[in-house]
Amino acid sequence: MKKSNIGMIGLAVMGENLVLNMESKGLTVSLYNRDFPGEEGKVDIFLLGRGKDKKFIPTYSVEELVQSVERPRRIMMMIRAGDPVDEMIQQLLPHLSEGDVIIDGGNSDFKDTERRVKEVESKGFYFIGTGISGGEQGALNGPSIMPGGSPEGWPLVRNILQTIAAKLDDGTPCCQWIGTGGAGHFVKTVHNGIEYGDMQLIAEAYALLKHRKLMNNHDMSVVFRDWSNGELDSYLIYITYLILKQKDEDGSYLLDKIRDVAGQKGTGKWASIAAMDENDPLTLITEAVYARLLSALVDERERASAIFPPTPSLVSLLEVKDIEHALYASKLISYTQGFSLLGRASDRYGWNLDLGMIAKIWRKGCIIRSAFLEKITEAYKTNHALENLLFDDFFEKRIKVSLDAWRKVVSEGILTGIALPAMSSALNYFDGLRTVDSPANLIQAQRDFFGAHTYERTDRDPGIFFHTDWSGIGSESTSGTYNDL
Amino acid sequence: MKKSNIGMIGLAVMGENLVLNMESKGLTVSLYNRDFPGEEGKVDIFLLGRGKDKKFIPTYSVEELVQSVERPRRIMMMIRAGDPVDEMIQQLLPHLSEGDVIIDGGNSDFKDTERRVKEVESKGFYFIGTGISGGEQGALNGPSIMPGGSPEGWPLVRNILQTIAAKLDDGTPCCQWIGTGGAGHFVKTVHNGIEYGDMQLIAEAYALLKHRKLMNNHDMSVVFRDWSNGELDSYLIYITYLILKQKDEDGSYLLDKIRDVAGQKGTGKWASIAAMDENDPLTLITEAVYARLLSALVDERERASAIFPPTPSLVSLLEVKDIEHALYASKLISYTQGFSLLGRASDRYGWNLDLGMIAKIWRKGCIIRSAFLEKITEAYKTNHALENLLFDDFFEKRIKVSLDAWRKVVSEGILTGIALPAMSSALNYFDGLRTVDSPANLIQAQRDFFGAHTYERTDRDPGIFFHTDWSGIGSESTSGTYNDL
Repeated sequence: MKKSNIGMIGLAVMGENLVLNMESKGLTVSLYNRDFPGEEGKVDIFLLGRGKDKKFIPTYSVEELVQSVERPRRIMMMIRAGDPVDEMIQQLLPHLSEGDVIIDGGNSDFKDTERRVKEVESKGFYFIGTGISGGEQGALNGPSIMPGGSPEGWPLVRNILQTIAAKLDDGTPCCQWIGTGGAGHFVKTVHNGIEYGDMQLIAEAYALLKHRKLMNNHDMSVVFRDWSNGELDSYLIYITYLILKQKDEDGSYLLDKIRDVAGQKGTGKWASIAAMDENDPLTLITEAVYARLLSALVDERERASAIFPPTPSLVSLLEVKDIEHALYASKLISYTQGFSLLGRASDRYGWNLDLGMIAKIWRKGCIIRSAFLEKITEAYKTNHALENLLFDDFFEKRIKVSLDAWRKVVSEGILTGIALPAMSSALNYFDGLRTVDSPANLIQAQRDFFGAHTYERTDRDPGIFFHTDWSGIGSESTSGTYNDL
Repeated sequence: MKKSNIGMIGLAVMGENLVLNMESKGLTVSLYNRDFPGEEGKVDIFLLGRGKDKKFIPTYSVEELVQSVERPRRIMMMIRAGDPVDEMIQQLLPHLSEGDVIIDGGNSDFKDTERRVKEVESKGFYFIGTGISGGEQGALNGPSIMPGGSPEGWPLVRNILQTIAAKLDDGTPCCQWIGTGGAGHFVKTVHNGIEYGDMQLIAEAYALLKHRKLMNNHDMSVVFRDWSNGELDSYLIYITYLILKQKDEDGSYLLDKIRDVAGQKGTGKWASIAAMDENDPLTLITEAVYARLLSALVDERERASAIFPPTPSLVSLLEVKDIEHALYASKLISYTQGFSLLGRASDRYGWNLDLGMIAKIWRKGCIIRSAFLEKITEAYKTNHALENLLFDDFFEKRIKVSLDAWRKVVSEGILTGIALPAMSSALNYFDGLRTVDSPANLIQAQRDFFGAHTYERTDRDPGIFFHTDWSGIGSESTSGTYNDL
C-alpha cells in the first residue's frame, strides 16, 4: 500500500484547509479525526465533500494513521489547545518509530510547547510547535508559519511547511525556523497581540473620522482606500475600506448595523500575560485587549452613557492627515513594544530569535501583513542587536514627522470624550521612554517609607541600596490622620 | 507544660512583627522557623533580641511546634509563597488532630489557596488563606487582615486575628470574614493592585506639579499636606508630604537624589492577570504596573531621551486645583475598576463578597487606607447589588465636578510630553464606558471578514449571529495590494 507524505489529526476548518492546501501542492495526506459524539464520521464526510477525488488516505485509529505515513513520519495535529494535545501525544507515542516528528499547529501556550518538546525528545522523537496565521483563507491558500521546537525535526518538515506557506514576491516562503522549545508558539502569541493592537488602532481612527470629522461611510471608505495605497498599506486597512463600503440588502451601510461588542478568543490576553512575565511594558496591546472586554459590558455601557451624556461637541481641529499620523505613529509604537517583548523573551529562553526574519515572514499570509513590516526587517538588518526599534533611523525620523499631529489627535480625543485607549497608551509609553527624570523616584521613596524596600541614589553607583528612617519625621508632624506611624 | 494559643512558622520580618503584635495582646505564641543554611537558629536569636522576656515558646521541629499548641490548634505560616507552602502543609498534616486549622498569611496566589482549602479539608482539617496588609509597621501595630477559606475554621481564628488587626474609630476590627476558598487572597491581590494604582497616580500628580507648575519640593510638600487634609486624605498622600520635605544630610532634598527606577515584587501583575482571567478591563492598575516596568528600562530611557528631547515647554494652563481634580477622578476610576473585578470574581467563584465591608476593613492598617474608602462602603450600603461604582450618586456627582479639569490636565500632559499613563487610561475607560456607539462594530466586521467569527446586529435581538460573505466584494475591487482575497 502506498504511504502518505504526512498525517493530519483534526479536521476542523483549519485542519481541512491545510490538508487541501497540502494536497494541491502534490502531497498525499493521511487523515484522522478523533470523533466526538454528534460529529462522527468527519473523515468520510470530508472525502465525500471538499476532499473528493483527491490524494487523501482515510484512517480510523491513531495506529492506522501512523502506519499509513512514510518514515520518518510527520504527524501534524490541528486540534484544540490544552489537554487534548497532551492526550493525543500519549496516544501517538507507542506507535512511533525513531526519527518521527509530531507537529502541533494549534494555538498552544508556548510554555506547554517548551515542556512537550522535552517530553517527546526524551522518548526519542521530535516535536515541532508551530504558529500558523492567516485564518481559514490563509490555511487554504498559504499562511504565515512560525515553527519552533526540536531543531532536528526542522529538516524533516521544512519542505512541506514551506511549500504550503505564503510566498514573498521574491519567492521566499513565509515559513522559516524560529527557534528551539516554545519559540514558534511564543512568536505566534505576540503576532496575535499585534493583531489586536492594529485592529484597535484602526477602530480608533474610524471613531475619530466618524465622530470628530463627522464623515459618512462612503467618505471614510475613500480615506481608508487612500491610506491603503500609502504607507499604511496593509491587509487590515484594505479590508476596512471594503467593510466601510459594504451595503446591506436594503442598500444601507452594513457596518452601522453591526453591534459594537468585540469578541475575542483569549489569544490577545496571552501576549499581555507574557509581557507581565517578561517585565515588558506592552501597554498598547493590553489596552486593545481591555477595549474589547469593555465593549462587552453592554448593560454597564448603556447605563453609563445615560448618566454621563456626551460632551458638547466642539468643532474639530483635526485634519484627516492628522489622524493618519496618529495611526501610523501609534502603530510604530505597537510594533516597537511587540518586538521588544520578542527580544526580551529570546534572551531569557535562549531562542536567539532573528527579529528581522520574523517581520519578514509576517509580510504575507497573515492578518497583520503590511508594507510597513519591511521597515522592521531593514532596521534589524542595519543593526542586528537593536535594543528598541525607536532607535532605528527610519523609526526615529518617522515618529518625529508625526509627533505633533499625534499629540493633537490624542488631545482632541481626551477633550471631547472620544475613547482612544490604544493611541493614548502609545503616546504615554513614548513619553515615558523619553523621560530621564521620571516620577518613579517618588514611588521608590514611598516603597522605602512603608516597606523598607530601599532605593538607589543618582549620586551613587547603581546597585547600592539605601534606606532612610523616614518615619522619624512622622513623629515630628502634627498634621493629618496618619501621624501615628 | 503550658500550651500556647497559636503556633507561628516563619520568623522573617512579617512573621516576627506579627508574633510581637500577638504577644502584646496577651497571647502565648509557639515559634518555629525552618532554618536554611546560613540563617540557622533564628528562633533563639529572636528570643535573645526583640522577643526577649516575652510569652513565646521556642520549638525546633514541626512536630514539637504542633504539640506545643493548645487544641483545636491554630498553626500560622508566614513563609515564602509557592512550593514552600505546599511542602509545609505536607509536613504539618501527619501531626494535626481533628479540628485543627492551618493559616497561610503570605502572599499566596488565590488559585493555590482554592486548591489547598480543598486538600486540607479532605484530610479532616481546616485551612485559612488570609491577606495581611500594612507592611512591617502594620504587622506590628495592627494590619488589615482579609481571611478566607474553610468557613468552619473562621470561628477558631477569629478572636486572635481580630485582636491583632487595626481598629476603626468605632472599634470595628479591620479583619472580617471574606469568603470561602481563595477569596481572602484574591481580595489581597486586588488590594495590592489598587496600591500600585494609587502610587502611580500620586507620582503623575507630582510630575505635573514639578514639570508643569515648576514647583519646588517645599511648595509641593505644602500641596500634599493640604490635599492630605482634604478629600484626598490618605496614608499615601500623607507620606508623600513627608517624603517631599525630607532633607538629606547635606540639607538638600533627599527625593531629588533617589533614582527613578521603581521596584516591584510581582503582586501588581497578579491583579492584571486576574483581570484578564475574569474578562475585566482593569486598565489603570495595569498601566501602573507597566509604568514601573518602563521605569526599569534605564538604558533605553536614557538613549530615547537623547534622541527625542523634551517638547519645548509651553506655559501651563493648569491650576494646582485642576491636578487635584484629575487625581481624585482617576482614583474614583481605579477603585471602580478594582471593585468591578472583585464583583466579577465573586460571581464566578461563588464567594458572595461583601464589597462594602471590604472597603471598610481597608480603612485602617493598610497602605491604601483613606477617608475615601468610606464612600465605597456607603455606596454598597445604599445598593448592595451596585453593578458599577460610577452608578452611585456620590461617584456620579463627584466625577462630574472634576471632569473638565481632569480632561484639561490629561490633555496638557499629552501636548507637553508628560507621561500620564494612569490618568489617561482612567479617562479612556470612563469615555469608553459612556460610549453607546463605540467603534467595536468595526472590529467585529473585521473578525467576520477574515475569520468568519460572525456578528450581532443592532436591529435584531442579541444572541443571533450573522455572517457576511465580505470577500465577494474583494474580487470586485481593483485597488490595493490585497485584492487577492
